[in-house]
Order: sequence, then C-alpha cells, then structure tokens
Amino acid sequence: MSVDSFLSSGTSPSRNRCRIAILGFGTVGSAIAARLVGADSADLRAALELTHILDRRAVAKRRALPERSPLSAKIVWTTRFEDILASDADIIVEAIGGIDPATEWIRTALASGKSVVTANKQVVAHHGPSLLALAERQGRQLRFEAAVGGAMPIVRAVSDGLAGDRLTRIVAILNGTSNAVLSRMDATGCTLPHALAEARLQGWAEADPTVDLDGIDARAKIAVLCALGFRLRVDPTRIEARSIAGLRPADFDEAHRRGGTIRQVAFAAYDRARAALTAWVAPAFVSASSILGRTVGPGNAALMTGEHAGEIGVVGAGAGGPATAVAAIGDLLTIARDRAAIVPAPVLSAPALVHGIDGDAAIVDLLDPHAEHIGLNAQSAIHDPQWLSEAV
Amino acid sequence: MSVDSFLSSGTSPSRNRCRIAILGFGTVGSAIAARLVGADSADLRAALELTHILDRRAVAKRRALPERSPLSAKIVWTTRFEDILASDADIIVEAIGGIDPATEWIRTALASGKSVVTANKQVVAHHGPSLLALAERQGRQLRFEAAVGGAMPIVRAVSDGLAGDRLTRIVAILNGTSNAVLSRMDATGCTLPHALAEARLQGWAEADPTVDLDGIDARAKIAVLCALGFRLRVDPTRIEARSIAGLRPADFDEAHRRGGTIRQVAFAAYDRARAALTAWVAPAFVSASSILGRTVGPGNAALMTGEHAGEIGVVGAGAGGPATAVAAIGDLLTIARDRAAIVPAPVLSAPALVHGIDGDAAIVDLLDPHAEHIGLNAQSAIHDPQWLSEAV
Repeated sequence: MSVDSFLSSGTSPSRNRCRIAILGFGTVGSAIAARLVGADSADLRAALELTHILDRRAVAKRRALPERSPLSAKIVWTTRFEDILASDADIIVEAIGGIDPATEWIRTALASGKSVVTANKQVVAHHGPSLLALAERQGRQLRFEAAVGGAMPIVRAVSDGLAGDRLTRIVAILNGTSNAVLSRMDATGCTLPHALAEARLQGWAEADPTVDLDGIDARAKIAVLCALGFRLRVDPTRIEARSIAGLRPADFDEAHRRGGTIRQVAFAAYDRARAALTAWVAPAFVSASSILGRTVGPGNAALMTGEHAGEIGVVGAGAGGPATAVAAIGDLLTIARDRAAIVPAPVLSAPALVHGIDGDAAIVDLLDPHAEHIGLNAQSAIHDPQWLSEAV
Repeated sequence: MSVDSFLSSGTSPSRNRCRIAILGFGTVGSAIAARLVGADSADLRAALELTHILDRRAVAKRRALPERSPLSAKIVWTTRFEDILASDADIIVEAIGGIDPATEWIRTALASGKSVVTANKQVVAHHGPSLLALAERQGRQLRFEAAVGGAMPIVRAVSDGLAGDRLTRIVAILNGTSNAVLSRMDATGCTLPHALAEARLQGWAEADPTVDLDGIDARAKIAVLCALGFRLRVDPTRIEARSIAGLRPADFDEAHRRGGTIRQVAFAAYDRARAALTAWVAPAFVSASSILGRTVGPGNAALMTGEHAGEIGVVGAGAGGPATAVAAIGDLLTIARDRAAIVPAPVLSAPALVHGIDGDAAIVDLLDPHAEHIGLNAQSAIHDPQWLSEAV
C-alpha cells in the first residue's frame, strides 16, 4: 500500500473547496494567482479554488495574462468590490496595499461573513485589533502571515510557538528592499541610488521606496510584532524611525574597519515591570558575521528573546511575490483546514512609556555590547550580556 | 484607557480554564509544572490549571517538591493512569518518554475524549499518523511541538507556515545533547567522554546518551519532519544513522584545517518526480561560520528549502526542561484557545525509494558543495548550488 488514507478531513476536493477572491493584481496578487492556477497546483487545488480577481485595471490585466490553464478562463474579473462581496467567495485575499480602501474592504468582507488573508502590514498595525475582534465575533478568520517577514513564518512563531515563553526583546531585519540596498552597498562599495536602481531591476524595490528606506514599513511590522509578542497596542507613528536614505559608501568603510556592516534594524524590548517599551527602526552597525550581518539581498531575519528559552532566530526571504505568496497560501490552507476555527482577538494593553533612540547618531551602534542608549540594560531577561557581539 | 478589552474569547479565567494532567515528573514534566504553578504564572493560569500529576514515584517526588504556592497543594498526585483517565482533566501532557506505555496511554486518553500534548518524538515518529487520525475522529487534538527542536517552533513552521511552499530539503541539527558534546570538543579540544561528562553536569545529557550520540533520537525527529514537510510516511529505522560516538579530537583538528567544524546533521531531501527520499543522520563537516557551525551548546538549527521561497532557517534552544516546556505550553495554549478546533490528520504516502549515505565515510563531507554522495544533485529545486558553502 503506497498511500495511507486517513480520515477525510471534511475538505475533500470535489465538494468542499474554499473559493478564493483576490483583491489587487500587482506583484503579490499575481504571484498568489499564479500558484493557485499553475500547472503545479494540483495539491493546492484540492483545498482552494481561485474564483474572482478584482483590479482597477481588470480588463487590461486580464488580457495581459496568458491563459495558462483552463482554470484561468473560469475566473471572474471585476473592478467593483461590490461584485466580490456579492459573490460566493469564502476567503478574500487583500493584496492592494495601503490603508484606504483596504481597511474598509476588509471590514466589510468580515462583516458579510467572509474570512480574509492580507499581506497589508499598515492595515494590521493600525487597525488589526478591531478587525480581529470583528473576525472573532463573526466566527471568521483574519490571517496576516504575509504582512511581516515574507515567507519567514514569524507571525505564527510569535503568536503560537513562542506563546509558551514570555518574550522580552525582538531584534530584526523586516524590510527586504532596504536590506537588498544595504547589502549591495556593503558588497560593492556603490552609492545608495546605484544600489536602489539595482534592487528595482530585481523587482525588490518600488518606484517610490520612501516607506522602505525611511523605516515606515519596518515600524508597522515591528508594531505588529509588539502586539503579538508583548500584547501591546502601539501606534506605529509612536515608534521612532531614522532613515537609511542618507547612508554613504564611507559609512560602510567605517563599518568594515570595525568588523561590521550596516543593516536597517527594527528593535523592540519590553520591560513589563515598568510597562516600558523601547522601540525604533534605524540603520545600525552590526557584526558582519552575525545572523543580521549575514542576511543579504531581500532577506529578513529576526532574533526573539524569551525569559525561558533564550533566543529563537528565524531567517528567510522577506520580499518579492513568490515569498509573500508562500505566506498567504499558508494562511489560506490554514483557514481551509478548519473554517469553523475560533481565533480569539488578542487582549492588548498600552505601554506606559515608549522610548526611542537616545542620542542623535545617524547610525545606531550595535557593535557595542554595552550600548546603554538602546535600553538594553533596562532589560532583566538578558541571559548573556554578550549576546549582541555574539549573535547580532 | 490602558487596557483594550476585546471580545471575551470563551476561555475566560473563572469559568473555562483547561484542566491539565502531566504524565511523568522528570526534567520535562517538572519544568512544565513549574511554569504552570510558578509565581510568574498568572497569565498562563488564566487559561490553564494544573490539576493532576502522574509519576511512578509520586510519593517521593511530591515530598521532594517544595510547596511553592497554594496551587501546588491542590494538585492530585497518583501512580495510576486509570486515575488520570477517570479525572476531569481536559488535556494530558505526556512527558514519560519511550514507546511503551506512552503510545497506549496517548491512544486511550484520546479515545476517552481528552486532548494530548507530547514531547515524545519516538511515539510521534512511529505512531503519529494513527494517533492523529484518532484525535481527528474524536474531535480532539494531539500536539507535539516539543517533540522536535525544543523551543524552536519548527513543527508549526513546517506544518502551517511553509505549507504554502513545497519543501524539497531539510538540513538540521536536532539533538541538543550531541550538539553540546560536539561544540565542546570543538572549543576545547577535549575527548568525547570528557565533553559528555560536562554535558551531564549541565543537564544536557542523560545517564545513557546512546540514543542521542547514535542518531536514534535525531532520526525519529527527521522522520516526523518528513511527514509534516514532505507528507511522507517513513519508518525511522529505515533512515541511516551513523554515530558520533567514535569522534576524536584529531577529527576536529582536520575540520579546523579546512575552516570547518563537525556537527551531528540530520538530512532529508525529497525528489517528488521519482518519489525518492534521501535521509540520514551522521556526523558531518560543516563550515564553522555557517548557521549549523555556529550552533553551540544544546542549540538546534534547521534550514528548510522550498521550491518557491528558497531557504527558511530556524535556530534556538533544543534541549533542557525550560526550552521543552516553552513548546509544550505553546501547544496547551493553542488547544485552550479553541478546544473545538478540527485538526485533520495528514494524508501520507510512502516513498518509492529511501536512500542513505553513499560511501562509508565516518564523517559526511558537507564542506564540498558538489557533494554528490548526499544526493544533492538529484534535487531540481536547488536555487543556488553554492548554498552549502554559503549557508551550512
């Protein structure tokens, strides 16, 4: 016997597939669609069926898309969200980005009984708590693994796996565009505009990279991780962000002289006794041989410190359509597996204090293991005070 | 307002806590108990209540345990599994280890309507499929994050997060005892018996470390990952294992000359076109600066390669009571959050072929990026043929 057939899971192919509508046919939406209708998609199609695509330019995009399979021909294309709402789609994948109209569309979709998968870190950072509460009331799910860390399963790691610890600190690279730019400058000695042009050619940078370089993207993501890991509600705009846009080749020369390199680091540490959060996003000197320093191209990495298990690290592809699609499809499969699952909205508190970066250095110095200015000494849970020189 | 109180999750403290029984009060069981009744446990106690402990030496162990809190006094101790079955415990934590009687106890517990959390890789590797099918039929859950990788949330990463990719290869350090021994030999030049004695002092090695050093422990874990990541049913005894017990200081001298070190590596690669699995556990030369080479003490690490997102890595504490307790408590909280969740048992197939290691080298050479003997060239999904020299 070559196949062990266990119990039918209640999601057998013919009678009970989840019907999927994708909102937005850009880099992320088209990558998800390609997976769902691709030649290789038989295993996914057992659980998931792409039925609708919404895009402002539906007519042009539909024409531009080669009819890869008979499946593509059956997809309904529309420019109107009302068509999606009125459809029999079970799960809506929000891939349009930005706060408006994404937030309202997600809210309306949940209110009308559909589950939602999103890659939208801004919506989750600003409106996640109320949307999750709505999803719970509706008995539907809102999942957002793709909103933080690309294919790196950090949302699940922090929400579920490390729920058994008590996290005290997260140090991470959460923006693939910035990392591609900085690791290029590091390797070639080129200027930032040059590295950015290269990243655009690779599809790792948008036409306007401001939200990436200025840390606006990463601070939304670290705010989401503060909610999941520390149970804190933090408005992302309260998190100090310093841009990498001003970095010059000479900054990397200095880093190299010290055995380091420069990365855009997102930092969050929580002192529960004082309800004090230290959180920032900024360019930082890190050891070249560390996990952060070795993360190149559009990679992401995160080091999470818990009181009980010490440091847990995750690394992986952080940007690009295929990586984001892996995370979104994982969420779709999770929902399809148990559509009736109840996912309680987290109960969050507000921090009494939110600290940023002490001092005005353009580049935060994480090569100094005693760096008081980032609030490390205020942490009671640092098992190894040498961790920065060892691990980062 | 300092607290945002969202919807009650249906598991509010007073009326709906999950009642927990722990089987086995050794390193793992006592670490879990300590977390559940500790001074710091208020957040856990909102969802979980430790009510029963079973141990063969219940009387002695109970006496040896200081009454840390009034909570400890209310716990029922017993030597008889029948008492646990007849109790009102909702979830049973199996922490006795070994195949017998753990397998039958888990089966009986599920059959009587209780959910089960286990740290037992042997039970999951040998009997996981039938136990998971039973859990699904019963509408209960069997969770085992603690069975693989300690606190590193690899079971969730592979089951859920990376379900949206198609995994082709897993290269990992999965035995904390062996890693503590090898990294000690690496750092000090000492003999294996000496390093083992040190590991015992730290609580990272059992009195009889044979299953750890010989790879029996790691191959059960890699078999579990083959089921989760490749949907393959593999009897662990079909996975070739070579012991680290014969390693000498001179082997590390050789590794150092080549810029490397030695780790106990668990390897699995699946060629879906041929339904061919290559899987083994053995000492291997790896780059000293790689994620595997940099994993020291009782750490674990895993690099998982997918067709769509490339490599995802996870690192963290792999052995010891506190790390294992983090994983088990994460599972308890997941069950408590949605006791009615349906977790479909995976549908597994058997591989047509299972390959081991070509050749009879005592130490597998992963410093050679073209290492054909480990079956890498049979893989179609290797995006970067240099990955071994870069990443491992």
